[in-house]
Amino acid sequence: AAPAARPPNMEDYWRFLALLVSALLAGFVSVIFALVWVFHYREGLSWDGGAGEFNWHPVLVVTGFIFVQGIAIIVYRLPWTWKCSKLLMKFIHAGLNTIAMILAIVSMVAVFDYHNASNIPNMYSLHSWIGLTAVIFYSLQLFLGFAVFLLPFAPVRLRAALMPIHIYSGLLIFATVIASALMGITEKLIFSLQNPAYKESPPEAIFVNCLGLLIVIFGALVLWMASRPHWRRPPEELPKAPRPNGGTSEGTEAESTMTDCSNADKPDVDFNSEAARKRNLKLDEAGQRSTM
Amino acid sequence: AAPAARPPNMEDYWRFLALLVSALLAGFVSVIFALVWVFHYREGLSWDGGAGEFNWHPVLVVTGFIFVQGIAIIVYRLPWTWKCSKLLMKFIHAGLNTIAMILAIVSMVAVFDYHNASNIPNMYSLHSWIGLTAVIFYSLQLFLGFAVFLLPFAPVRLRAALMPIHIYSGLLIFATVIASALMGITEKLIFSLQNPAYKESPPEAIFVNCLGLLIVIFGALVLWMASRPHWRRPPEELPKAPRPNGGTSEGTEAESTMTDCSNADKPDVDFNSEAARKRNLKLDEAGQRSTM
Repeated sequence: AAPAARPPNMEDYWRFLALLVSALLAGFVSVIFALVWVFHYREGLSWDGGAGEFNWHPVLVVTGFIFVQGIAIIVYRLPWTWKCSKLLMKFIHAGLNTIAMILAIVSMVAVFDYHNASNIPNMYSLHSWIGLTAVIFYSLQLFLGFAVFLLPFAPVRLRAALMPIHIYSGLLIFATVIASALMGITEKLIFSLQNPAYKESPPEAIFVNCLGLLIVIFGALVLWMASRPHWRRPPEELPKAPRPNGGTSEGTEAESTMTDCSNADKPDVDFNSEAARKRNLKLDEAGQRSTM
Repeated sequence: AAPAARPPNMEDYWRFLALLVSALLAGFVSVIFALVWVFHYREGLSWDGGAGEFNWHPVLVVTGFIFVQGIAIIVYRLPWTWKCSKLLMKFIHAGLNTIAMILAIVSMVAVFDYHNASNIPNMYSLHSWIGLTAVIFYSLQLFLGFAVFLLPFAPVRLRAALMPIHIYSGLLIFATVIASALMGITEKLIFSLQNPAYKESPPEAIFVNCLGLLIVIFGALVLWMASRPHWRRPPEELPKAPRPNGGTSEGTEAESTMTDCSNADKPDVDFNSEAARKRNLKLDEAGQRSTM
């Protein structure tokens, strides 16, 4: 079988950068759209049990539960972080996810508070069922990720066995949060648009529909970047643990305890180095067997 | 680095079967739920521009665009099809997706027809924007898949280059269809439940929320099965094209023209054969580099 045509490494690097910039742009514009929605079309932000308190819900979900979570997912893929220690990157990954979780929880408190103040029942809609499920699984994911991959106690075999599940459930939760946000937008536009109604397509309806599309585009870009095997962080190769085939499994490599980003005492893992290039080619071969 | 613990092959086979049965069950019960929804709680099915015509929309989306599409996605994974020719499996994959597309299009016609008869505007909601986008991309995906992977004209390099995109966009469209269905359920319950309203959680609201959860579970199971590298169909190894490393790329293997399921003139690719086991182990190694 003829090998797949591989672009030169620099071309691949620029492709990654273009996708990253597109994703950041889509995410950033989504946050702006959420703010314009609540400040220009709605009652702004407040914390008094009124509509302004509800408005924290979409703002914090888009900012934290979608944008920050998306960045947390692809943070290992940034080539300029490959010279940083794995441990530092794990802290950043866990830290961003913790921020996202806190914002998601505050966003839920805002809705419950608003509902209770306005005598609207809680947890009746499919949006609320799936949204709460996502928050619960996200917390569980964060707790398990912390216990297994960040703390030094879990044996290598357990890490290796759980890593595919960690990655799959992370991406599934991210997609579920986006689906839940789309349901939330649908609900909110139907309930709050009266004269003209949602079905008469007033400017707010078009504007917030576009917010929904932006969120989907952001999600699609993050999922693409996260699932390209050849954009993975190259494995750490410490002098003490030589790897016969140059390949390692995520979660099974010996852990570096350095938390800085210096190049001292570290193999050169630059995106453009010959070693990285060879490693990437290896990943490419493996990538042919990947299904995502 | 210690290799990940691998389960014995039979255990893996039973694990796959258990997941498959769970997915089929979730999908089948979703279809039943959609039917109970429209027949027990709603106006049943008809084609007269009334509510009964609208009801074809959820029934056909759940049956075709979700259940049949999900089966089409995992059809290559069924171990007992590995002795069938790749070409036959491609026909089944394309055929199931064609059925799903036809049902999706009819389901859209039902809504447009109903809207026009009832003077309800078309294409105003986020659900309609994302749903129509999904149908358009699905048709494009089917057309491109047919032209590149089923017809014998595309060069091997093009197939290899497009296969990761084909797989990614297929899974993304599937997830988007599910998100769109959840938005549709939300809309329909808000619009059609009055006295008691959706927020008062009448039995229909609870029942259809459960339909939404079932669809999410079905989607999660299909995406898990589709993204496990070690459950991939083993590559076809024809005598004329020996492969030095025993590995091939999806879409790059020499094509068998046989369309039957006999074992004649074919290497043994049974799930439990030694050759398949070794091949699966190779996939496992590659799987460690996969991110999904």
